[in-house]
Amino acid sequence: MNRTSSSGSRARQTPRPQAARRPSSQSRPSRSTSFTPSLRRRNTSQTLASDLNDDDPEAANATSTDAAIVEEIAEIKRYEDFTTIDWVQDAAREQLRRKARRRERDSIGVSKNGGGKVFLGRGRGKWRRKIAEAYDAGQAWIVVTLVGAAIGLNAAVLNIVTEWLSDIKLGHCSTAFYLNESFCCWGAEAGCPEWKRWSGFWPVNYLSYILFAALFSFTAARLVKSFAPYAAGSGISEMKCIIAGFVMKGFLGFTTLFIKSIGLPLAIASGLSVGKEGPSVHYAVCTGNVISRFFDKYRRNAAKTREILSASAAAGVGVAFGSPIGGVLFSLEEMSNYFPLKTLWRSYFCALVATAVLAAMNPFRTGQLVMFNVSYDRSWHFFEILFYLIIGAFGGLYGAFVIKWNLKMQVFRKKYLAAYPITEAVTLAVLTAVICYPNMFLRIDMTESMEILFQECKGGKGYDKLCDINRRWHNIGTLAIATVVRTLLVIVSFGCKVPAGIFVPSMAIGAAFGRMIGIVVQALHESFPTSAFFSACEPDGPCITPGTYAFLGAAAALSGIMHITVSVVVIMFEITGALTYILPTMIVVGVTKAVSERFGHGGIADRMIYLNGYPFLDSKEEHTFGVPVSQVMASRVICLPATGMELRQMERLMKENHYQGYPIVENMKTKTLIGYIGRTELRYALDRAKIEQNAPGHAKCYFTSPSSSSSATHQQPNTTFDSIPATSSQIQLEFERYIDPTPLTVHPRLPLETVMEVFKKMGPRVILIEYRGRLTGLVTIKDCLKYQFKVEAGNAGGAGNGDEGMERLAGRLRGVLNAVRRRLGMREVGEVRLGSPVAGGGRQESGVIREESEVFASSLLSRRCAVAILKKE
Amino acid sequence: MNRTSSSGSRARQTPRPQAARRPSSQSRPSRSTSFTPSLRRRNTSQTLASDLNDDDPEAANATSTDAAIVEEIAEIKRYEDFTTIDWVQDAAREQLRRKARRRERDSIGVSKNGGGKVFLGRGRGKWRRKIAEAYDAGQAWIVVTLVGAAIGLNAAVLNIVTEWLSDIKLGHCSTAFYLNESFCCWGAEAGCPEWKRWSGFWPVNYLSYILFAALFSFTAARLVKSFAPYAAGSGISEMKCIIAGFVMKGFLGFTTLFIKSIGLPLAIASGLSVGKEGPSVHYAVCTGNVISRFFDKYRRNAAKTREILSASAAAGVGVAFGSPIGGVLFSLEEMSNYFPLKTLWRSYFCALVATAVLAAMNPFRTGQLVMFNVSYDRSWHFFEILFYLIIGAFGGLYGAFVIKWNLKMQVFRKKYLAAYPITEAVTLAVLTAVICYPNMFLRIDMTESMEILFQECKGGKGYDKLCDINRRWHNIGTLAIATVVRTLLVIVSFGCKVPAGIFVPSMAIGAAFGRMIGIVVQALHESFPTSAFFSACEPDGPCITPGTYAFLGAAAALSGIMHITVSVVVIMFEITGALTYILPTMIVVGVTKAVSERFGHGGIADRMIYLNGYPFLDSKEEHTFGVPVSQVMASRVICLPATGMELRQMERLMKENHYQGYPIVENMKTKTLIGYIGRTELRYALDRAKIEQNAPGHAKCYFTSPSSSSSATHQQPNTTFDSIPATSSQIQLEFERYIDPTPLTVHPRLPLETVMEVFKKMGPRVILIEYRGRLTGLVTIKDCLKYQFKVEAGNAGGAGNGDEGMERLAGRLRGVLNAVRRRLGMREVGEVRLGSPVAGGGRQESGVIREESEVFASSLLSRRCAVAILKKE
Repeated sequence: MNRTSSSGSRARQTPRPQAARRPSSQSRPSRSTSFTPSLRRRNTSQTLASDLNDDDPEAANATSTDAAIVEEIAEIKRYEDFTTIDWVQDAAREQLRRKARRRERDSIGVSKNGGGKVFLGRGRGKWRRKIAEAYDAGQAWIVVTLVGAAIGLNAAVLNIVTEWLSDIKLGHCSTAFYLNESFCCWGAEAGCPEWKRWSGFWPVNYLSYILFAALFSFTAARLVKSFAPYAAGSGISEMKCIIAGFVMKGFLGFTTLFIKSIGLPLAIASGLSVGKEGPSVHYAVCTGNVISRFFDKYRRNAAKTREILSASAAAGVGVAFGSPIGGVLFSLEEMSNYFPLKTLWRSYFCALVATAVLAAMNPFRTGQLVMFNVSYDRSWHFFEILFYLIIGAFGGLYGAFVIKWNLKMQVFRKKYLAAYPITEAVTLAVLTAVICYPNMFLRIDMTESMEILFQECKGGKGYDKLCDINRRWHNIGTLAIATVVRTLLVIVSFGCKVPAGIFVPSMAIGAAFGRMIGIVVQALHESFPTSAFFSACEPDGPCITPGTYAFLGAAAALSGIMHITVSVVVIMFEITGALTYILPTMIVVGVTKAVSERFGHGGIADRMIYLNGYPFLDSKEEHTFGVPVSQVMASRVICLPATGMELRQMERLMKENHYQGYPIVENMKTKTLIGYIGRTELRYALDRAKIEQNAPGHAKCYFTSPSSSSSATHQQPNTTFDSIPATSSQIQLEFERYIDPTPLTVHPRLPLETVMEVFKKMGPRVILIEYRGRLTGLVTIKDCLKYQFKVEAGNAGGAGNGDEGMERLAGRLRGVLNAVRRRLGMREVGEVRLGSPVAGGGRQESGVIREESEVFASSLLSRRCAVAILKKE
Repeated sequence: MNRTSSSGSRARQTPRPQAARRPSSQSRPSRSTSFTPSLRRRNTSQTLASDLNDDDPEAANATSTDAAIVEEIAEIKRYEDFTTIDWVQDAAREQLRRKARRRERDSIGVSKNGGGKVFLGRGRGKWRRKIAEAYDAGQAWIVVTLVGAAIGLNAAVLNIVTEWLSDIKLGHCSTAFYLNESFCCWGAEAGCPEWKRWSGFWPVNYLSYILFAALFSFTAARLVKSFAPYAAGSGISEMKCIIAGFVMKGFLGFTTLFIKSIGLPLAIASGLSVGKEGPSVHYAVCTGNVISRFFDKYRRNAAKTREILSASAAAGVGVAFGSPIGGVLFSLEEMSNYFPLKTLWRSYFCALVATAVLAAMNPFRTGQLVMFNVSYDRSWHFFEILFYLIIGAFGGLYGAFVIKWNLKMQVFRKKYLAAYPITEAVTLAVLTAVICYPNMFLRIDMTESMEILFQECKGGKGYDKLCDINRRWHNIGTLAIATVVRTLLVIVSFGCKVPAGIFVPSMAIGAAFGRMIGIVVQALHESFPTSAFFSACEPDGPCITPGTYAFLGAAAALSGIMHITVSVVVIMFEITGALTYILPTMIVVGVTKAVSERFGHGGIADRMIYLNGYPFLDSKEEHTFGVPVSQVMASRVICLPATGMELRQMERLMKENHYQGYPIVENMKTKTLIGYIGRTELRYALDRAKIEQNAPGHAKCYFTSPSSSSSATHQQPNTTFDSIPATSSQIQLEFERYIDPTPLTVHPRLPLETVMEVFKKMGPRVILIEYRGRLTGLVTIKDCLKYQFKVEAGNAGGAGNGDEGMERLAGRLRGVLNAVRRRLGMREVGEVRLGSPVAGGGRQESGVIREESEVFASSLLSRRCAVAILKKE
């Protein structure tokens, strides 16, 4: 209340000095003469550093009022959907806020100590200020600690639930139903009588396995569909965009967090070929977002919140793998396109807290974070590099293959399966259970299978005769089948409407392939022990360790699918502890990277972003367009004159178009750039004027005034008031405080690449193109992306095919789906027509996102019409 | 030759069309009318994406000429000392070059295929182009591979030499003098008869130890002084500045590389408390610089070279510690203030190659990279966190203490010891040898001592009864002495004029302290085994592992001195393999970080930068100034009018001042900003005009012309030629091609913080302040730093003391030094008076750098006069 009234009174006061100082001449401004005094003034002011602390109470009051308005607008902006945040403005806003706070404190100090400025900051006020400052500075650390602890707790609970759910598929604990197998049989080796399988007869077990899988997947998909459509999938690509500054309302909300946390154990336990890492990152980032909202500093500042989100992402990977440093690097390499050292340290701390809490909870009662503690007795030999190259190449090829077909599958899903998310998930789960049960590496949990594959053969036995030399060819066959089947399952499963990651499935595939290669090499060595190739081996005793190949295969596949390098290496060490294999891992990942580079641009997350058409400038890619920004900019910009526009005109303008903001020019003829006003700010200003000042439609709006109250008063040259017509009898609305007087501007001839760099590094929402003081255009990230798309589409040429085949496939699949649905007796809310744009999600937002994605999805299908689509938009 | 003549002919041609098109009116430009057509033209041009490929041969020719000039200037710029590079311009230049190359190739394609444009790019030309493109794209990887291999080789050789030199101090191999102890006694346990100590009588050994130390340090210091003064010290702070864009001629040259490589083993073998890591990074970066010079892409582009330097730094740490990923993270966290993912991958690859080469060379014949392979049998307990906190706090305090006193020592050294670098090094080496020989942990090599301290006690013996329970208090005492003595030695030694790092000494100190704490805790546990505090321990058997405390202590000290976190954790794992201790390490490093933050701004490298006054904007720090950039900018800018300035005026201007560049304005009255020309470019243009065109002094220089040949011709509005006076009879020099028409400009009211962000993220050399098209000022990084310094000095208040004490200490030390010098019979080139600004370095550059540092060093001593000093500058 106090805030509103004070600013209201200010708004009423201002016209007076303005009118008084306004010269009556209406002549055109003679810029060359007016410029010199303004420069002189600047010279004198520059030497005064003391200007910093001028405590003009009027100015202080105005600053705090401004700060209050700024905060209110920031609050509104938080809830705007599908927009991007303006990092530059956010930073400027933060500065203004700090300044206001400092002034406030200073004035408290003054009043407390009897008005003497010399005593400012002494006594009790000083301590209070110090504590407030410390709290302000430490807020980030408090938030990070809380977020980390919450993530760690959540992860511990989820781990326990997941284990239990996974085991319940196979049997139950007769002493206490809530115990999983290992807790039930605590202390006993290899099973115990308390743990009972559902039946002694294997087909019953098979059936109950399938039934549980169907039940779990149904529950997960149902929850996701009904309560939080955003909880589906891995969420990594969306989070990348959000961290880069995109706003997606509800994506990181509490409901999503809750549903994702519940759905994840169910989805994993259902046996679908999905992992928990992507979703872990998602719920971690949700946690970060939800908790940071309670803190003043982050509620206001969307850009600062991104730091917390980056840190949460690190903690998410940290708890998922038990690999805190790997998490930090993942956040650095994959999640964040801007990662200053401050964020690095916050991420480090957040991951540390989360992992420490997880370790303290000790959900597995093993007392360690390392998931697959392997210790290889033997070191590697240089000749093995040849095989490492094969594994590395496999990783790259696997990534390229899965990305290509999974994207096709996603398009297909969006087009034909969007209405049947639950049926789809259940069908997939049943299919997976039916196929996987017979294969010994597919039946068990993926994490468990990796653990088995990583192990060195000691004593010649191992899980299910994996180390048995006589069954070698059988093992190779089983592993090959496991690799192929799992790959196909991953392609169809990743992206279905349950919480689903792709890390662990990829690693499991890589491990199976690697182990296969390892066994082959071992067989080779045993066949030709004396050949020159194997001369580095010791004459007797084993030389090749197939477990290490599995380990390297997992690293390769993970790197291939995500296109990350350093984080993969670190994650692999942290989860296994196989440190002597650092060089082989680096070699393998390097080869994978090289192969992937050859095949595609970016990992699966980047490609999904592209597919979904999010406004994300990839900092990894480098383009050479060789054109100036003027070729890309929108040159017919709707701009507002600084003076004299009527309120109703303004209202009409805002109704007619939906641009996110408007440049302000001195007048429509010269187009001398004055500033920029965002749509939200303008809306706020207009509404406020109407409510508080009862402004009629013919009231004139002014964006400039000589009585500017900001700190840089002396910067305001006196040229502007020449051009204000002397119509002081009219009602004037002063909107100057809402505008951004210093938008980023560039020269029209600046290369497009440099402008894109500015977008990437500085993060403004819009860049204005100014030529010698005049506005000539406006460019946004979307303009850059459109141009890039156009150029790439032009280079690629027409390559639109596969539509018919997909249509056919859809028809068949639809039949199967419906049959399954009928048989299982499930009902869906309504029979939506195939290919209808109304998506299955229950919320309005999700409809929007699907619609938008639809456009880009089809553009992927047939690039020929891409340009047309973009033009439509 | 071809290049010169073609551009020369172009220069002669140009005046014709210019004169023809020039209107004769001399009236003031009426901007409002002239603007509209230029905007219209822009609109029509925008829709033409095909404009990208317009193959106007005239334009193509001009572009390639321009590219040639650009390259020539880039070559000159490489050798300018003590300047900063302009990342924005460098990027633009690269774009221009690529465009020229594309055109060139296209025109080859055209001529090959009979002039038909449709066949462009077909046939053999296509293949050649593809190969050329692949080479262009792959050049970076080729360079990185070569650099990595060279670094690995160098490291291997240095390792062998260092080992031999260290051992020769104690004895020699009687079978072959060139073998060190472990090779001499290959296969034997604990010494062999072939390895002979110099004498059986210990005082003789003591003396020979001291003599060798003196000899080695003398040689190292002599080499550095005579051949490469830049090879002294660690070089990390200078490299940070260089990677950030500072140019220091010779710092990364071949001589420095060579001398650093020779001097490093000598310095380490001399027993000085210096490490090899900083110098390793330095020689690695030198290698990167030297090798990349042979490649076209990097000879031209200083900004691109920085990527290679970052990658080399990663490889340097990688080979020094055998920790490739740690190296990459070190490069990310400490060396580079801008580290895009591309650089991350290059660093990864470079570190991989270097480490692989080192592993293949296998200098220690142990077959592993892990320096101190430790495997702890026992895990940690939660109660131990209490002691970890102590260790963490020690790390922070150690760092703060050493940084503070070492900086004081540096100032002292610069002031009083600059003339005696060799004497100083020898004195320090002798002193170190005398002090360290009696203490068992100080006598041996620091790396070796760490290895011993990290080990777990097995069988109760260990090195020199370290594990003997009866000698526990003796061991604690020895370790405490080692900690204190080594700390003092590091303070005085780091910075002396031999290649010297601070990583390993810090780690050794931390390890000694940690082991001490560990033994104390162990003693506590054994005294009170049943207390509640130790309840987590198993009832019988050992519980505390003192080796882990040593390990954590090393991490804490390293983090404390360098203020790095993530890289320390990764490096510690990579060098020990103690993976179960990841959480304790993270906790310790986190505490260290928190404690260090409390005490000082930045690690020792950052503080050295500050001390030396390099123009480096630290991306770690965040400031709130709350002032617009107009308060900081230089507003009395010397700018050049676009038209009509005479050649001799220009020459005079350049002689009178030494600014790095000049903004170009339409005329001196309106100051409408046209562009910016660097000093080098202007110098080049003037020289070329004088030589090629025989331009007389009264020839007029033009920076704008209507016949602009750049690709963005249509951007050039026709306002400019109105203002060119019709004096076509005179000789006209057209300099338009040399100017940067699109310098980065900002609004004068933009907050200073945002401008600093632009400097940090975009990296321009200068930002012009433009207000409605008019130049109002200019700001450089130095202006920002000066302002920052001023504000900080103002806040800190006067704190200048210690000058007198230092003066006294200097007097005494001088006496000692001279005495030692006389006794050892050494002669120096000349007796330089104490405190004289003439430095000891043999080269002119080092004189410059010392002089500059002098200014800032004294400013550190007494901040009261800081502002005055800065004003002087």
